This record gives sequence, C-alpha cells and structure tokens, in this order.
Amino acid sequence: MQKSFEITSSSGNYQVTIGKGLLAASLNKHASAVILIDDFLTGVLPADEKKIIYVTAVEGSKSLEEAAPIVIKLRELGAHRKTHLLAIGGGIIQDVSTFLASIYMRGIPWSYLPTTLLGMVDSCVGGKSSINVHGYKNLIGNFYPPSEVIIDLDFLRTLNAEQMIGGLFEAAKICYARSPSEFAAYLADAPSINMSPDQAERIILRSLRSKQWFIEIDEFDQKERLLLNFGHTFGHALEAATEFRISHGIAVGIGMIVAEEYAKQQTLLTPTGIKCIRQMTSHVETLLHKLPEVAKELRSLDIDLLSEKFDNDKKHLAEQYRIVVPKNDGILELVQVPRTAQGRANIKEAYRVALERVINIFH
Amino acid sequence: MQKSFEITSSSGNYQVTIGKGLLAASLNKHASAVILIDDFLTGVLPADEKKIIYVTAVEGSKSLEEAAPIVIKLRELGAHRKTHLLAIGGGIIQDVSTFLASIYMRGIPWSYLPTTLLGMVDSCVGGKSSINVHGYKNLIGNFYPPSEVIIDLDFLRTLNAEQMIGGLFEAAKICYARSPSEFAAYLADAPSINMSPDQAERIILRSLRSKQWFIEIDEFDQKERLLLNFGHTFGHALEAATEFRISHGIAVGIGMIVAEEYAKQQTLLTPTGIKCIRQMTSHVETLLHKLPEVAKELRSLDIDLLSEKFDNDKKHLAEQYRIVVPKNDGILELVQVPRTAQGRANIKEAYRVALERVINIFH
Repeated sequence: MQKSFEITSSSGNYQVTIGKGLLAASLNKHASAVILIDDFLTGVLPADEKKIIYVTAVEGSKSLEEAAPIVIKLRELGAHRKTHLLAIGGGIIQDVSTFLASIYMRGIPWSYLPTTLLGMVDSCVGGKSSINVHGYKNLIGNFYPPSEVIIDLDFLRTLNAEQMIGGLFEAAKICYARSPSEFAAYLADAPSINMSPDQAERIILRSLRSKQWFIEIDEFDQKERLLLNFGHTFGHALEAATEFRISHGIAVGIGMIVAEEYAKQQTLLTPTGIKCIRQMTSHVETLLHKLPEVAKELRSLDIDLLSEKFDNDKKHLAEQYRIVVPKNDGILELVQVPRTAQGRANIKEAYRVALERVINIFH
Repeated sequence: MQKSFEITSSSGNYQVTIGKGLLAASLNKHASAVILIDDFLTGVLPADEKKIIYVTAVEGSKSLEEAAPIVIKLRELGAHRKTHLLAIGGGIIQDVSTFLASIYMRGIPWSYLPTTLLGMVDSCVGGKSSINVHGYKNLIGNFYPPSEVIIDLDFLRTLNAEQMIGGLFEAAKICYARSPSEFAAYLADAPSINMSPDQAERIILRSLRSKQWFIEIDEFDQKERLLLNFGHTFGHALEAATEFRISHGIAVGIGMIVAEEYAKQQTLLTPTGIKCIRQMTSHVETLLHKLPEVAKELRSLDIDLLSEKFDNDKKHLAEQYRIVVPKNDGILELVQVPRTAQGRANIKEAYRVALERVINIFH
C-alpha cells in the first residue's frame, strides 16, 4: 500500500510518497544521480552504486565549514546543472542536502528519503535548512524543497528507542499545533516505540498533512509556521547546554514541558487549557520513561549555562524573548517576554520546575 | 534628476533608482542597518557609522571559505531576522552580499548600491550570486534579489579607465543581446570613458531596461537569459588563465571577439551578420586601445592553459561545450560544440586568432 499527496511551494510543487520498499525504486528511477547518504546507512545501497558522498550524521557535519569539501566532491563526481541529488538520511543529511542542492551551480534538483521518524513526520516537508557556523547553531539556512519526498517505512527498522521517541514528540507537537481534534486523533492512533508499519504510516500521514497546512499558508516562516517552534526554543538550549547529548526530538519533548510550566507560572491557562496541555505532557512523560539516560543528563545540567544558551537563541528579538506557549484553552501562541532580569528569572524558574518533573519520572 | 523603475521577481518586486547623491539618503533611511562595504570605499561613509563590515574586493573574498567569518561578524554586530543589510561596492561585494543575505537566519532584507559601472549597467539587477569554492570559480551561488537597488552616479568618479571600459563592454553586450536597434541606440549615446553623468545615466538605464526583459522572462537562467553569457564562457577562461589579472569586464569584451572568430571560422554568419557583429567588436577594440597593459598580459598567455580553463567551465555539459555565438544575421544563439579533439581544436584556434587581433590593436 502506497500513499501520496502533493505540497504546494513557490518554487514548484512536490510529491510526498509513503510506503514500503521505495528505496530500490528510487535508485532505479535516478540511475545517474549522485547519492548523499548518512555513512551509518552504507549497507542499504547496492554494491554497484558508484557516485556516493558519505556524510557522518553529527551536528558538526551540518556546518558552513563542512560545506566546501562536499561541494568539491560533487564537482569531482562530475555533477553539473542537471545532475539529480538523492539524499538518504535523517535531519542532518536533509539540512546538508537542502543547503548544497540550493547553492551548487545555483541549484540542482534533488529527492529526499528521510530515514528517521523525525524526518518522516516533520522535517521532510517544508524545504528549510539549518546550518551551524563556528558553533552558532542554525545561524544560517535557506528554503529549497526537494522535487520529491520518498518515505520508505523499511527504514524504521534501523531506529533505536530514542530516535522513535524523538520522532513521536515532533509528530505530537505538530498535531497539537494544528488543532485539538488532530491531537486527539494522533493519540487515538496509539503512538508507541513498537508501532506496526501500518500504524506508523497513519501517524506519519497525519503529522505531515497537519504540517502541510502550516507550510502552505506560511512558506517562509513569518507567522503561522512559527507556532511549530512549540518546544523548540526551550529545547534548543537543552541541546546546546548538553553539547547535543540530548537529541533534538527529545529536547523538543522536554521543551514542551518547560512551556507548560511557564504558562502555569504566568497563569496564562484556563482549567480547560491546563487539562489540554497536560494531555500532551503526560504523553511526553510516558515515552520519556523508556530513556533513563535522559534523567542522568538533566541531573548534571548547569541551569545557568542553560539560561545563557536560551538567551543566545537567534529567534529572540533585541528587546524580547520569543517563545511559543499554550494560552487560554490550550491554544498555542507566540509570546514576547521582555529581556529583563525578571523575564530571565521567570524563564529560568520554568526550566527548573520542568527539569525536576522530568527527573522525577524516574523515581 | 532621479529615474526609477520596478523589476518583477518571484521573491518580490524591487525598485531600481538612478541619480546623484543617493548614498546619503540611503544611510538615513536605513539608520540601523549593517553596512557591508568594499574597504576601498571607507572614505564615503560618515564617521559616526558603527555597524560596518569591510570586505576587500578581490576574487578570494567571494568564496565559500570566506563566508563564515562574515556571518560571524553579522552575529557579533547583533544582526537578527529583521536587520537590514546595506551593501556598497562592485560585483564582488554584490556576490558576497547576495549570498550572505540569503542564508543569514534564512534570509534578511538588503539594499544594493553598486559602485562600479559594471555593477550599475548589469549585475545589480537579476539577483544572482556567484561564489568560488577552493579555486573553482563561481561553482556555487543562488538567486536572492535585494529589496531595492540604488545607483548613485557620484560613485563613477571613483573608477579608473579599466573599470569604466569593463562596464561599457557589459552594457554593449546586453544591448546587443536584446536587439539590433537597442545596440544601435547604445552606440548613438556615444559611450566612452569620459562620459558625463547624464550620458552615463542614459546608458545605464538602457542597459538595465534591456536586461530587465531577460530576467523577467527567465528569472532562473534556463533559456533566454543564457544569451547574456555572450563573451562570458570565452572570457572566464581568460580571467582564470591570467589569475584574474584580466578583469571580468575586459575578459567579456575580448570573449566577444573570440565568439566572432569562432562564428567566422564555422561560417555561421551571413554578410549582414558579419557586419553586425563587427560593429560590436570595433567598439570593443576602440575602447581596449586605452589599456596597453592588456596586450602585455595576452602576449605572455599560455594558450594550452587557456584551453584547459575553457574546458573546465561549469557551463559545459558532459558531452558538449556550450557557447553563445552570433549566427546568421548576427543574432545570438546558444550553441553546443562536441567535446571532441576537433571541437577543442576549433575553440583553441578561435582564441588564437582573436588574441592576435587584440595584440595587434597596439601595434
């Protein structure tokens, strides 16, 4: 069973296809493509593939400094303006590929095959890249969607518990941001780390169709799409402060708990709103329980460093922090917090309470 | 007297304004902008400007390797998503600014003030960037037009003969590519290195309005716009083989003579066509006569190296060279030449005859 739908973008529409066994078909279709692949996945390619660029899926690979050697490899493999790039991997591979495909000879066509659940439920659509520069996370990037997204469910077998949970956190966040009924439907699909491929397909499709609404209404991240940063601004600081030992998806899950605590502290929520966001954070806590190593990281975390990393986030404005929090009946809003000593202290307190909550899951 | 018109682009329209004394007005309008400026032009800025990034206008500055330090400077100057970038300089400053404005925090708004004639008559519209990687010229780039182009004619006073002539070659090329009547009108404006500001304004306006036709009909460089590469593919090899001692505009002028020689060699032209292209190359020769140092460069040039540099141009396809040459009655066409020993020899012979012609101007 194969499902497919189309995403509209200013630089051309692209097809998203979900199913099993799609990698082989893709390699066939793009026989003369250059393949850019996570070096962890070497085994999935037939032995006769020749034009391959291996990238290690670590944070340092998605940096401006590492872009030049890959550009040179493309050139050495004879890539020209009509060469197709086939990118196979998770978020880091996607960031690198989006950026490189957009700039190589002013843009070459490319296909993306996400291999992580996080890539499948979220980042594979939207066309954004995020690239680090000298340790500043995601300081640069751009918009350059692939000409097709191919989600091969067979890759789910290669993932560990942390990767599955990170992906579910992003899917949960997107459905929550879309509407209460989408989030209820997401929970009804019984998301877990032991999902069947059919279950996974339903959850991926639900998440992507929800995200589609945001990216078609706000392709360049000016308004509605900013709500998808729910959990992210709080989460990025967690990633940075632990030198990425807490991975992106997990950080987003914890970030949503921080957002809940901030909303409660500032009494932004009605009783309905408290119940609504609690459904989300209960789900996050249930899944986090499978990852005791997270509690260990959080116990040794310096909260001043966390606060400093939060302060450095590029999403803030000169005079205001910008965070996404649930308000009123639980609906997400982009909120501006003054960058004053008091504002900083409130944020820090929300972190403190949230981290304590997460650590306590494991007691 | 100030003239202005609008260019249509998929990422938003932008205004082009030509006149005198426009720099001061721009600095006023964008009081909190970060200024990226050719370090040769330091003197044009008021002493109280604080947020300035100086870039040396040499080929090495428009490289992927040099992008990271400028990104970091933007960050250190506090640039955020809404920060305006004011770019002041010639083609290299424009390439660097287009690239950086497009990737910094996924794109910030920017204005461009071209300071060379070449920038004013040609590159300031179109939104393209060309960036070098490890010595591969223009291997990467993208499309990201500024939100406004401001042509301050006062900058013409800062230019030397070579810079004026290079600009005129590009203007001549654009008008020629547009139509025989545009080129006749260009010649009727009596272009020379001693033009008055009014004359310069007329020539700049004519050239930009001609270029506008190409970029609005073919923004992403797929078809019509490729004709603007007239003189360029032959010219790039000249720049590369002389390690850029022959500058871009001058190389384009000589490149048009090479194209004429190739067309004659292959008998692609009617008698009318020969007369038509001869008008262009006579104009080029007349202006080149002011630059005896060019002949000196050409005399010591290794034609095998030139041929090799031509062979390496990224615009070629795997099996064909792609060049723009005048055909029939002198109209430009994108022509494919087989990448065979014979094809290579023909190209080399066209170079040889053309260079001899240019050297003979000075006898």
